[in-house]
Order: sequence, then C-alpha cells, then structure tokens
Amino acid sequence: MTTAEPHETIRVGLEERAYDILIGANLLERAGEEIAARMPGARAAIVTDENVAAIHLKALEAGLAKAGIQSTAVVVPAGEQSKSFSVLQTVVDAILAARLERRDVVIALGGGVVGDLSGFAAGIIRRGMDFVQVPTSLLAQVDSSVGGKTGINTAHGKNLVGVFHQPKLVLADTSVLDTLPEREFRAGYAETVKYGLIDRPDFFEWLEANWREVFAGGPARARAIAVACQSKAEVVARDERETGDRALLNLGHTFGHALEATTGYDSARLVHGEGVAIGMALAHRFSARLNLASPDDAVRVEAHLTQVGLPTKLSDIPGELPDAEQLLAYITQDKKVSRGALTFILTRGIGQSFIAKDVPSSEVLTFLRDSLAR
Amino acid sequence: MTTAEPHETIRVGLEERAYDILIGANLLERAGEEIAARMPGARAAIVTDENVAAIHLKALEAGLAKAGIQSTAVVVPAGEQSKSFSVLQTVVDAILAARLERRDVVIALGGGVVGDLSGFAAGIIRRGMDFVQVPTSLLAQVDSSVGGKTGINTAHGKNLVGVFHQPKLVLADTSVLDTLPEREFRAGYAETVKYGLIDRPDFFEWLEANWREVFAGGPARARAIAVACQSKAEVVARDERETGDRALLNLGHTFGHALEATTGYDSARLVHGEGVAIGMALAHRFSARLNLASPDDAVRVEAHLTQVGLPTKLSDIPGELPDAEQLLAYITQDKKVSRGALTFILTRGIGQSFIAKDVPSSEVLTFLRDSLAR
Repeated sequence: MTTAEPHETIRVGLEERAYDILIGANLLERAGEEIAARMPGARAAIVTDENVAAIHLKALEAGLAKAGIQSTAVVVPAGEQSKSFSVLQTVVDAILAARLERRDVVIALGGGVVGDLSGFAAGIIRRGMDFVQVPTSLLAQVDSSVGGKTGINTAHGKNLVGVFHQPKLVLADTSVLDTLPEREFRAGYAETVKYGLIDRPDFFEWLEANWREVFAGGPARARAIAVACQSKAEVVARDERETGDRALLNLGHTFGHALEATTGYDSARLVHGEGVAIGMALAHRFSARLNLASPDDAVRVEAHLTQVGLPTKLSDIPGELPDAEQLLAYITQDKKVSRGALTFILTRGIGQSFIAKDVPSSEVLTFLRDSLAR
Repeated sequence: MTTAEPHETIRVGLEERAYDILIGANLLERAGEEIAARMPGARAAIVTDENVAAIHLKALEAGLAKAGIQSTAVVVPAGEQSKSFSVLQTVVDAILAARLERRDVVIALGGGVVGDLSGFAAGIIRRGMDFVQVPTSLLAQVDSSVGGKTGINTAHGKNLVGVFHQPKLVLADTSVLDTLPEREFRAGYAETVKYGLIDRPDFFEWLEANWREVFAGGPARARAIAVACQSKAEVVARDERETGDRALLNLGHTFGHALEATTGYDSARLVHGEGVAIGMALAHRFSARLNLASPDDAVRVEAHLTQVGLPTKLSDIPGELPDAEQLLAYITQDKKVSRGALTFILTRGIGQSFIAKDVPSSEVLTFLRDSLAR
C-alpha cells in the first residue's frame, strides 16, 4: 500500500453513471488501487501522446502494476491533429488487438486531445467500454475530463463527431501540472475563472485574491481545481446531454471558437484557453453594451484576466484577423447555432450568466466591428 | 393527405427514448407525415445502398416531399463491406456537408447493413442526431431495426465498434418485402422463428401452422412481423444495453456467428439468417444432449426450419468446414464471451430459452465433433 496523501473527492451525481473525481498530489502512483477498487479484474489500455508518455507513462504503468493491473500503451502523436477519424481507427484497432473486453478499461493519460479521442474510442468499442480519465493539463482537469463529452474533428468543424460517454473515475493529479509550460497553465486557468463568472461570484473574488498561490501550486491549486470540478459536476448532473443549462459552460466559447477557427487553430497565435479568455471578456463587454450588465463588471473581468497574463482583446492576437462579417460567418457555423438563430451565453454581472437565444446578428456584427477597432 | 391504410403500432417503452414501430403496407408513402408529426421542422438525410436506392429511394423521397421535408440522399455500396470505418467516415462527411443539425434526422432506408451503419453515423454526429429506420428486408424489420444497436466491423470481428442509439421511429413497410429474393426472405424468417423459441411457444406453433401465409404476404405477414417486433421491444425495454436478459436475443447466434466467420462471410455459402437457423437447431440439440430439454423439441425445431427451406445442419453448408477445434476457436473469439467463460443461450424446451454461463468448452468441443460427423 502507498501512503495515502490527502486528496479531495467530488462526486458527479449521474445515478447509475455516477463517478468520483479525485484531486490531489501523486495520484498516478495510486491509480492502480483506485481503479482496482472500482473495476475489479479489469485489464487496461493506456492511451497517451508522445509528449506525455515521455514524462508520465512509466509512473502510471508502475502505479497500475502495483495493484496487479496489466496494461498496454497506445501512443498517438501530440496535438489537435490526432482528433481525426484515422487516429481514432488506429486507437480502436490497437485496443481490440490487445483483446480487451467490455469490462476492461481504457485510461486516457494526457490533455484534452487524448481525453476526447480515447473517450470516444472507449465509447464505441463493443458499444461502450469502461473509461478512466487521468488529465495531465489544467485545462483537462477543470474542464474536458469531467462531463463525458468525447469526440474528434472533421473538415466541417471541431468536435462535430463524438459521443457522450462518462468516465468511471477521474484522477486529477495536481503534481503533474508542475511540468506544464506557463502558457498552457494560464490557458487552463481561463477555464477555471469561467466557473466563477457563470454562477460563483465568490469563487471569482477568491481567484482575484489567490491566483498567485494557484499558479504556484499547493493547496490553493487543488482547491481551485476542486471548485471548478464541483461546478462542472453540478451542471453536468442537471443536464448531462446539453439540452438545457449545460450550455452555460459555453461562456466565452462562441466567440472563442470563432477566433480559433479564424487563426487556423495555429497554437502559436492562439490556444483554446486564450480564445476562451478573449471570448469571456467579449461576452461581458457585449452584455454591457446590450445594457444587460454594468460595464464595471466587464472592466473587472478584463483586469483579472490581464493580471494573470491572459489576452482579453481581439488585438491581443498576433497577426491579421478577418473583418467583422467573416468573424460573424465563423460564429454562425458554430454547432451551437440552432436552426439559424444566434444563441450566446451573456451575463447580468459577474456570476450571473444566462443563455440568450435569438440574439440579433446585426447587434453582434456592430459589436465585432467596434471590438476589432479597439 | 394519403389514405390511411391499416397498420399495426408497437411502442418500445424506453421512457424518454420511447418510440413507435409502424408495421403495414405502403408506409413509404406516409413516411413524411409520420416523421413531420414527430420531428416538426426537421430536414433529412436518407442513407441507403445502391440496390435499395434503385427500387425504393424515389418513393421515400416523394413521401417526404409531400410533407414538406427536404432530403439529401447518401448512397453507399451494397453489402457487408460498407460496415467499415471508411464508409462510416464518408457517410458522416456527407451528412455534415449537407449542414444537418442535431434536431434534423438521418433516415436508414435498407437492410441491416444500412441500418447499422447509418444508425452509428447518426449516433456520433454532433454526439447524437435523430434517427429513423425504414427497414427494407424482413431480417431488418424483425430484428436489426429495433433496439438501437448500431455498428461497423473491423479486422478483429463483426460489430465490435458501434453505439447504442435508439431510433425515433421505425417504419416497417410490408409491401417492400415483395421485392426481396426468396432466400433473403427465408433468412429473415429464421429470426422471426427465434422469438417463438425464446419465450413464445404459442407463436412458434402459430408459425408452424401459418408459415405459408407469412411467406405469401398479406395480414399473416404483418402479424408475424408485429409479434416479432413486440417480442424484441419487450426485451429491449427490460434491458436496453444488454447487461442482462437481452442476451436471450442471441439464441442461435454464438454458433451462427462462428459459422459465418468460418465461411469467410461468403453469402454464396451462408447468410446471417441461415447461420442463425443452423445455430438455433444446434442450440436445441446441444440442450438435449446436456439433458436440459427433450430431444423431441430439437426434432420439432429442425423439422419446421427444414420445411420452410432453411438449413439446420453443419453439412447443409456447401464447401469445406474447419474441424471442431477451429470452430471452437471462432466461438471463443466471439465478443459475447466474457472473461474467457463460455456463455450460450440454451433451452429447456420450445419457448424456454435461458442464458447458460460457464458452459464447459470440452462439452462444446465434443458436441461440435459429433455435429460435423452428422
């Protein structure tokens, strides 16, 4: 037995699909016992990418072996390009070749790409295998590893193909975040801030006061991740399949996705979390312009994001941007556009986000023009 | 409005995923109004194969157009080879290119291959689009179109990749069966008989008396399809994801799948329904041999299948078969084998099937040796 270090446990309440998120230091070492306790007798396939494999694969394999869990590793190229039909097929074939059965387990060790890809593979092999997320980026720990959305990209857009497939367990090892590049940590922090802005004004205030400790690691970091996971877990439990208020989690994402698309998903220019940071700032500014919220709240959001080093304005993106008409075209292609009507997550103030349907595209266009001129 | 011809309606009781199966003549003409009533405003993508498209696509398109439903057709090559990753990707891309959204509908027009393939595509596009089955073979009407199993094949086996995705509606048009080749109709009849053998001895008796009318068409055919659908609907409602007694639907399938595999899925030698016919006969004979059931029941099952022209013995398959050891190897590769234990659907008599776990492989081997010698 390993020494049990303290960790936080969040329960995602989805009845027969309910699961735990464990958050704490050195959880990779404990992965085997946590999995064996929940899925006795299961064998494992670890899906990871080349970068993460180099740093963390051995520790996870050792953690599994300690509990007597045999594992096979499936290593895919790092980067968004792995969210494709061809890599999906490779992963599926490798798991089937290892002769894993329905009650064995697929473990995603990596960031959002690995989680989305291997969760999708787990969701379709034998019409659904057990699945464990071991997210290694802050973005994945606070967002993509929780909630069961999986998928790949196509020429028609990101995440247009996938399934809802809930994990049986999420192990958010806070120690692995020490190896993250600063820029990637910051991008994940943007998604953490999002939960404060949706409906937890106290959490936003706490982040304003404690963000340096969160960046430094230690208990404040674990706390921030736990609050984020708790927030997401509550939303997911209310609306697993995004037919209702789960859409609130898209705060900042409609603008953000359009910006990612216009920059050709070039991570040198913009990564997802940065797009979300700008998107959240725009959503607050747009809400103020529509007289839904006080402009002071937009200023405060922008100030905090800027303080931690995140971009908040269109002009913060290096290189050329298209004009407002083209940006709007990207927004209306977004899959969250239902039957041609424009749906945005807007706000009445910090921690008071809501789903606004039928936002007039003329208003969006004027706002984008002004934002480009800023 | 079309003249409403009489039809039978079976409700599959899956709470928020509940749906109707309509069974009757000339339902293609009414497809538009039935779909519009359940999915107002939806646009449609019809997925079909080259053979079915030539005979039935125009009628379905006209039936949709009458109710104002715009449709795009996606035509795939006929045959099992279309249940592949590459054809899946083609279908998904075509549906996305038509800019269908989550609340639009994918319509499967065809047999089991088209239903399994397009149901899988519908299940993964935007993490789940609405889906309607318009089965054009008897096999698909009584079996694969009901219950939500979808999938494709891989080098590692059939149907190893897929999702559970329930249709919103099944339209079983009994008129389209008039265009089926006799051999294909018979193969579907084997799956119809299966429901009698699982738990409806009265239905088996009715089929013994009325099979000629079922083959001829008319009300007896619609009745047989309705009973089969009702039986399957009840099993699916009890156990949607095959964690329990839905496995009863695999009566005849463990042997049947092994035979399909050993004949290289060569339809000149054996089609699925024929494999199931032989498998059901073997399951009854094996049950008698294990002293679970009277040998008379096995004789009676064999007599009825033979009477309608279905094969019942290994020697009914043209060409060479492998030896008993190799057949057993195919059986243990079947995905229904859980953790190495052999699970079979056996019977205590006609209409008294049950799930037998831990069947000794030595018994199976001896039985296969004797069956090969028969």
